[in-house]
Amino acid sequence: MSFVQPVLLHNFATRVLEKLGLTSTEAELVAETLIEADMQGVSTHGIIRLVTYARRVAAGGIKVPTKITVVREGPCTALLDAGAAFGQLAAFRAAQMAVAKAAQCGVGVVGVRNSNHFGRAGYYTEYIARQEMIGICLSNASPRLAPWGGRKPLLGNNPWSIGVPGEPDILFLDMANSIAAAGKIREAAKLGKPIPPGWALDRNGRPTTDPVQALEGILLPFGEYKGYGITLMVGVLTGLLTGGKWDAEIKPVDALDSPQEESHLVMALRITDFTPLEEFKKRISSIVSQIKSSPRADGFSEIFLPGEIERRRRVESEKKGIALSPSTIAVLQNLALELNVSPL
Amino acid sequence: MSFVQPVLLHNFATRVLEKLGLTSTEAELVAETLIEADMQGVSTHGIIRLVTYARRVAAGGIKVPTKITVVREGPCTALLDAGAAFGQLAAFRAAQMAVAKAAQCGVGVVGVRNSNHFGRAGYYTEYIARQEMIGICLSNASPRLAPWGGRKPLLGNNPWSIGVPGEPDILFLDMANSIAAAGKIREAAKLGKPIPPGWALDRNGRPTTDPVQALEGILLPFGEYKGYGITLMVGVLTGLLTGGKWDAEIKPVDALDSPQEESHLVMALRITDFTPLEEFKKRISSIVSQIKSSPRADGFSEIFLPGEIERRRRVESEKKGIALSPSTIAVLQNLALELNVSPL
Repeated sequence: MSFVQPVLLHNFATRVLEKLGLTSTEAELVAETLIEADMQGVSTHGIIRLVTYARRVAAGGIKVPTKITVVREGPCTALLDAGAAFGQLAAFRAAQMAVAKAAQCGVGVVGVRNSNHFGRAGYYTEYIARQEMIGICLSNASPRLAPWGGRKPLLGNNPWSIGVPGEPDILFLDMANSIAAAGKIREAAKLGKPIPPGWALDRNGRPTTDPVQALEGILLPFGEYKGYGITLMVGVLTGLLTGGKWDAEIKPVDALDSPQEESHLVMALRITDFTPLEEFKKRISSIVSQIKSSPRADGFSEIFLPGEIERRRRVESEKKGIALSPSTIAVLQNLALELNVSPL
Repeated sequence: MSFVQPVLLHNFATRVLEKLGLTSTEAELVAETLIEADMQGVSTHGIIRLVTYARRVAAGGIKVPTKITVVREGPCTALLDAGAAFGQLAAFRAAQMAVAKAAQCGVGVVGVRNSNHFGRAGYYTEYIARQEMIGICLSNASPRLAPWGGRKPLLGNNPWSIGVPGEPDILFLDMANSIAAAGKIREAAKLGKPIPPGWALDRNGRPTTDPVQALEGILLPFGEYKGYGITLMVGVLTGLLTGGKWDAEIKPVDALDSPQEESHLVMALRITDFTPLEEFKKRISSIVSQIKSSPRADGFSEIFLPGEIERRRRVESEKKGIALSPSTIAVLQNLALELNVSPL
């Protein structure tokens, strides 16, 4: 493992994205979403994604230059067509609009259709929480889960996030709805290791611990029918509400020449419509310390708040740099060569 | 088991509630929330609750006459103080206001503090969905869960629901965040039967299958840290956002003389701000039939939509009546005697 300073990675990603045709503001933003993921230890959503993004831009799956249009707009709501742009650009635009609307109305809800993979849902809710509002962000995704009791992948592992301003820091929840991420199963497949029972079914709808069969089958939702219900509703509140595609119709990120046609929904809620901001933040601190100092169950050495582990990793990354494997570095240097930009 | 016609139960509940001091409109509404729960097979939230409600009114935990006040109001948002009224009355008022605001703005968000137990969260989202909008409803509740890795019950089993208009019927999700409801554990305790491993910890934070020890300890969240994160956020979006009480401060329903001080948040979202309503409903039908007809996993004979089992039970209850045990009937008849209203 090498440790690379975040700023170097950020600048590298920005160079690559500019070369792909993004404006420098756009490139900086997409780069930041990726580097933030790496800093928080969510490397599956980090800089390694640049490789697929570059191929998708070349093949036409991601459209550059970016043309995001407003389909419909009211004082508190809006609908965007992302025009198959980078999902990050569409979702961030939606988050900015939601905040502006909430600053006027108390609440803003902005939908996006015809978009692509947008990285971590938590990026947008953290942004909204930094504007001192409550942020909610949902997206659908290409099908990976079945309805509970089924075996056909009709449902996406639809990510969603809630971000809340607090002292000393933002409280945020950021999750998808399978027990284990597809990335973990791909890793097991690469290493030839079995996966734990309960993670997946094979394509015949039978439980499997073979990662290859799992990848041809379906991921199981967390909490059985509850996780199924949640992922279904996230799909309804994104793809169906925006008039976009339903989960089952969304193209996977590796169908390089196809816009994925994902949909997102971003909401901002102004806290001061309900309670004074300072009081709210003080009470967040208070519950955080009550939770942190509460007695532990057998076998646990610490109690974490949602997002706390990620934030701790972020502090580490600021100090020590971001850990990249030699193979990731090689892949990024190859990409630089291919695109004729300065290497990392 | 006796089967009682819903209308008879409804009229009985209305008589009891009027006798407790509610206006007839209020009594009809609370009765409907209870009878709907019984019809859908959610008997833990059904007519049996009348007994506790009556004791709570007598002891001062629920305040009658109802005095719900508007603390703050904007075009799209509002905050109500329920004045320790029946939670159902406050939550329904919030749902009506959210719909009226969404009809003006596209979205309406109404918070409630200083409330009591409100029954099923799904009642309010079904109401909103029948107004052709998307409904979301959250509530906090008295502490029953610990933070993941902890053993102190700081968090409520905070119920939440999403309701969506559809053809032929509404799609709705209605859940709390423990693996198993406290009611099921109380039932096991009554029967002297063990509970499955994984449901609960004892008061020392150790896994237990003894229902009595489980009731003195904590319920475990569904999906481990994910369910913990969800129940925590529902508590933040209700108790903290409304300036009400946090989960840990909420009184249990059996502290008869104490207002529980629950908080709720109700949201309505106008579909036509994003997509035409008829198209949306047609697409809901389409995904419902794709899900229902999709191939099944090993060991399953049918795939259900969220809310479908409840709706099926409701149809049964309309035909056959609501099944009540002899002991439930005896309890209700005693209540009638006590309050001097006509028996069931």
